[in-house]
Amino acid sequence: MISIIAKFKVNEGEEQNFLTLTKDLIPASKAEDGCIEYDLHKNVKEPRTFCMIEKWKDQEAVDFHNNTSHFTNAVPKIVEIAQAEIDVYETL
Amino acid sequence: MISIIAKFKVNEGEEQNFLTLTKDLIPASKAEDGCIEYDLHKNVKEPRTFCMIEKWKDQEAVDFHNNTSHFTNAVPKIVEIAQAEIDVYETL
Repeated sequence: MISIIAKFKVNEGEEQNFLTLTKDLIPASKAEDGCIEYDLHKNVKEPRTFCMIEKWKDQEAVDFHNNTSHFTNAVPKIVEIAQAEIDVYETL
Repeated sequence: MISIIAKFKVNEGEEQNFLTLTKDLIPASKAEDGCIEYDLHKNVKEPRTFCMIEKWKDQEAVDFHNNTSHFTNAVPKIVEIAQAEIDVYETL
């Protein structure tokens, strides 16, 4: 299983825009066969900081996801309004 | 639900020690009533970098966990051999 921790520090004034961009991305990603988990979380201390906790069956599922229209539509816009820190992990 | 992303960059030569310290911590934490998820993952790119993805029923469960003997035994030793970056999130 592959876990991805995608941390986003959203630019000031762009929080609503960020939430709108993720609104369609989340259900569409969850619907993918290889998706185990794909949920958005808000940091309790750091302002405008969010994290997508993603879990995928394998690397093939991640590659498929990265080529979906919902991904390629939303993510380029998200990284324009937020600083992204993406960590990819394998389960021990 | 509270999610905690605990990222550890382990000091050189201390990986085995780190894995030994988490070996008892993980099953004991999973056994706690308020624990939903408590798994260790290894970063696929960054060397000696691990992440505990934790999910807890509520803040009360987190507070209980932080006072357990398995936590208070292991964590002080872990932060001596690793740089810890702890992010706490609420699910949206």
